[in-house]
Amino acid sequence: MLIHKIEDVREQVKAWKKAGLKIGLVPTMGALHAGHKSLIDKSVEKCDKTVVSVFVNPIQFCAGEDLDKYPRTLDEDVKLCENVDIVFAPTPNEMYGEGHILSNDFLTYVVPPYFYTDKLCGKSRVGHFDGVCTVVNKLFNIVQPDFAFFGEKDFQQLVIIKKMVKDLNIPVEIVPCPIVREDSGLALSSRNKYLTDEQKDLALVLSKILFNIKSCYDRGIVDVKALSETAFEYLTPKHSLEYLEFRDSENLEEKTVADDDTRVFIALKIGNVRLIDNISLGT
Amino acid sequence: MLIHKIEDVREQVKAWKKAGLKIGLVPTMGALHAGHKSLIDKSVEKCDKTVVSVFVNPIQFCAGEDLDKYPRTLDEDVKLCENVDIVFAPTPNEMYGEGHILSNDFLTYVVPPYFYTDKLCGKSRVGHFDGVCTVVNKLFNIVQPDFAFFGEKDFQQLVIIKKMVKDLNIPVEIVPCPIVREDSGLALSSRNKYLTDEQKDLALVLSKILFNIKSCYDRGIVDVKALSETAFEYLTPKHSLEYLEFRDSENLEEKTVADDDTRVFIALKIGNVRLIDNISLGT
Repeated sequence: MLIHKIEDVREQVKAWKKAGLKIGLVPTMGALHAGHKSLIDKSVEKCDKTVVSVFVNPIQFCAGEDLDKYPRTLDEDVKLCENVDIVFAPTPNEMYGEGHILSNDFLTYVVPPYFYTDKLCGKSRVGHFDGVCTVVNKLFNIVQPDFAFFGEKDFQQLVIIKKMVKDLNIPVEIVPCPIVREDSGLALSSRNKYLTDEQKDLALVLSKILFNIKSCYDRGIVDVKALSETAFEYLTPKHSLEYLEFRDSENLEEKTVADDDTRVFIALKIGNVRLIDNISLGT
Repeated sequence: MLIHKIEDVREQVKAWKKAGLKIGLVPTMGALHAGHKSLIDKSVEKCDKTVVSVFVNPIQFCAGEDLDKYPRTLDEDVKLCENVDIVFAPTPNEMYGEGHILSNDFLTYVVPPYFYTDKLCGKSRVGHFDGVCTVVNKLFNIVQPDFAFFGEKDFQQLVIIKKMVKDLNIPVEIVPCPIVREDSGLALSSRNKYLTDEQKDLALVLSKILFNIKSCYDRGIVDVKALSETAFEYLTPKHSLEYLEFRDSENLEEKTVADDDTRVFIALKIGNVRLIDNISLGT
């Protein structure tokens, strides 16, 4: 069932709650792919009812980012949601009010702690995670899910959402879902649609670098500097590396010596397309 | 029933929700007086179950404020809550975690918009309303009330909480409750306990100024400058006026011409005690 209005979602949710049903929420920006599908299937398996939200959230795009050209494919998204109970696709006006002004002069924001946002993607995408936390908080309040499903692809986002849920005592359980990859190793992302065939080949270095680091770690190399340096054999002048970092999986603290709690994060640009990936060094 | 643990509140709330009962929340910092009692009674009347939270919230006190000496009178508070179902009195550790660090480096904050916080009390109490919104958001998530009751005494707080509820789609209805006054006109406040008898006499000017402005308005004076000037006959060198402002009741915009949507706000210090009051010019 495709729903555009908050009130209609609330009404349906109320009935489900009354019947004691467990609700799962999969928040997305649409342009759904097999990665999202794995979250949806997990929710359908775990919960009585599943809501997929499809909303390209303006306040999580920073200046110069791709808000206007972000892929919007609602018809196809709905098809992928055949086993879902509600696809909730509100307009920006529905979410933020008619004539809304999205600055923090006029809108209440949920602001995650700086220690979690001043690194990795947060460093170049200032304010991005404020926008993410605010909209996810809104969706939680609208859908009131028992479980919410987030992909490990956006691992910093997952950590920050978990921290928000803990700090604000939100009555929801966050379920992390593993990254889904093409056979080539490329992590699925809605932004992959921006890539030409040539760029898609270039994009394989993200997973190659991560897999190689994992394999070096498995063979006993734990020095982060040494592990980092293994990346350079893969990078070409067409890869603009933003970061390659080793951090704690729980709190994103930097690691100098890798261990099983370490996660490796990479971001780079190919042309104008910014891609990210990450891998756990533990099993 | 006095409860100190979040999990115990959740368990009770869950049972009430399952039984379809309507829950009211009265968030307080304790030191309860007849003003709080009026909120409690309204909740008991309107809801099946009433929770009163008693928590002196550290993050809403600014540098140099009275966190340590803020009155804590839990035993008496509990007595005043005889018609209440739960008195929820958590410790700071229960609310913010063992070894908590309360800075926005390590804690997720709910930040109301600057347009609502850069004026009135927010001007001198920087960060105060961030602390208020954050803790109220936490309490909403713990108690999941259908209704929450706030006094008009802290009118800017009420406006900001209503804005937060709207902006974040929180499924709660905010019920404003009128200021309760002594026969003298003095608005009840936990901070009145700090006043000596002489200071309490001096404190009467707040309501006198407001009542006189209201009466001037009722007699047809609408020029805010003229109405403001009527205050000076009441003030003495022992009154340190912080502000006297005329603002819109809904969005706190400044008024130059008074009308029925106008609210008059006053804050002043007597000795070290900061007191506030306000009045609606409408009926």
